[in-house]
Amino acid sequence: MTNNNPIGIFDSGFGGLTVMSEIIKALPFESLIYFGDTAHVPYGSKSKNTVVKYSKEITSFLIKYRVKLIVIACNTASAFALPVLQKTLKIPVIGVIEPGAKAAVAASKNKKIGVIGTEGTINSGSYLKEINKISKSKVYQQPCPLFVPLVEEGWNNGPITDSIVKKYIEPLLNKEIDTLVLGCTHYPLLRKTLSKTLGKSITLIDSAKATAKEVNNILNKTHILSNGKCRKFLKFYVSDNPGKFKKIGGRFFSKKIDDVKKIEME
Amino acid sequence: MTNNNPIGIFDSGFGGLTVMSEIIKALPFESLIYFGDTAHVPYGSKSKNTVVKYSKEITSFLIKYRVKLIVIACNTASAFALPVLQKTLKIPVIGVIEPGAKAAVAASKNKKIGVIGTEGTINSGSYLKEINKISKSKVYQQPCPLFVPLVEEGWNNGPITDSIVKKYIEPLLNKEIDTLVLGCTHYPLLRKTLSKTLGKSITLIDSAKATAKEVNNILNKTHILSNGKCRKFLKFYVSDNPGKFKKIGGRFFSKKIDDVKKIEME
Repeated sequence: MTNNNPIGIFDSGFGGLTVMSEIIKALPFESLIYFGDTAHVPYGSKSKNTVVKYSKEITSFLIKYRVKLIVIACNTASAFALPVLQKTLKIPVIGVIEPGAKAAVAASKNKKIGVIGTEGTINSGSYLKEINKISKSKVYQQPCPLFVPLVEEGWNNGPITDSIVKKYIEPLLNKEIDTLVLGCTHYPLLRKTLSKTLGKSITLIDSAKATAKEVNNILNKTHILSNGKCRKFLKFYVSDNPGKFKKIGGRFFSKKIDDVKKIEME
Repeated sequence: MTNNNPIGIFDSGFGGLTVMSEIIKALPFESLIYFGDTAHVPYGSKSKNTVVKYSKEITSFLIKYRVKLIVIACNTASAFALPVLQKTLKIPVIGVIEPGAKAAVAASKNKKIGVIGTEGTINSGSYLKEINKISKSKVYQQPCPLFVPLVEEGWNNGPITDSIVKKYIEPLLNKEIDTLVLGCTHYPLLRKTLSKTLGKSITLIDSAKATAKEVNNILNKTHILSNGKCRKFLKFYVSDNPGKFKKIGGRFFSKKIDDVKKIEME
């Protein structure tokens, strides 16, 4: 394994691009390969076995590119597949949940933490478990199934989005949380609307940022940080619809995505 | 092929249950096998090749049960896979688009027809083409990507749903349509909210009802109507998450679904 091998990163679709963006900011000399499983998107409503199967197929693909570390940039896949992949792969694998949970515990003063995510992530209770491993905080969970389609429709602001955010968030406000974890990689795009409803006293935890920090830590600790002077490449693969990925992916990535290749997965 | 073989019906998920409901009402002596491809739901955002591949796998499964006719109870799969399946299978295959288009043309007086559906269905232009085959009507199309998640969240009514419906429907009202095709099997659950926005002068066309009528016609013409005195069975299969299918499927089916079996598709 050489230091200049790329980092592999995957998600069910576009959402993981918010994590990739943060890794790019934090690590300017690393090459990255992104895989979006757009033939099977979304993972949030699928069962554990199915998500584990898809995750295994994707990591087999990434391993062919001699990736030195894999980031599961998807909350549902992190919840379901991380332990299996950590057991079976010889390289470090990290998800977005542990970094997000740690950051939330560090930020909360009153030890009342809210977590929002897809049905899959919330039903798995993975943030709850991860937070409880390191703290006695009270955790209040709320699935928000409409947030992903809202973001994919590009309705990040406006009165409809305000109303939907209020409807999902009000039960958490009633619990007097002081910290809210964005437990889905799509949600950073709703940050402004969420902040409006939450007010200034509640800290928003973006798992993407926390995960980028953790990737940096691990590469440092295991001495596999790139020793190049510039980033060699960013590559994008999807299992379906590269055209749509280019179009919508740009919104998540905050810059244009030029080249996306389609891979047949099964 | 005996008259008492079942009818096969499939969809990407729950939506096709609205079509199954109408077939059950129209044909009280027929047995039916339903397949919901919940491991790959939704089809609406996926590419043609991918949807055709899934549709072929599902029909191979249904054929094992010696079905006498197959209904593609999904607009996206009807748009993409119907011609392929009609060529390769020896039994009648019907989709939901042709019956819906015919019913719309029959209903429209001013020959201005609106069509709403998922991105996949609308981008395929399949209602537009089908209507243009039989009429010179003007067709106005509008994708409504948030309707499916709204229905699956159970938000069929209320101020948020009213606002979303208005936002999507207003451009069609400006075109002075007198007929609106519900080009997605989820949309009949939004019928009340849609009617409120549309007013009484616009006729709503539910493809599910039109398709059930067409199934009846074909079974009659080809002399394969059941000659039993009662329905023998209704069976339900899914490719993922039978528990969720039972829970949410009930809303689409208007009665409880007791037994759902999971089938590994790949």
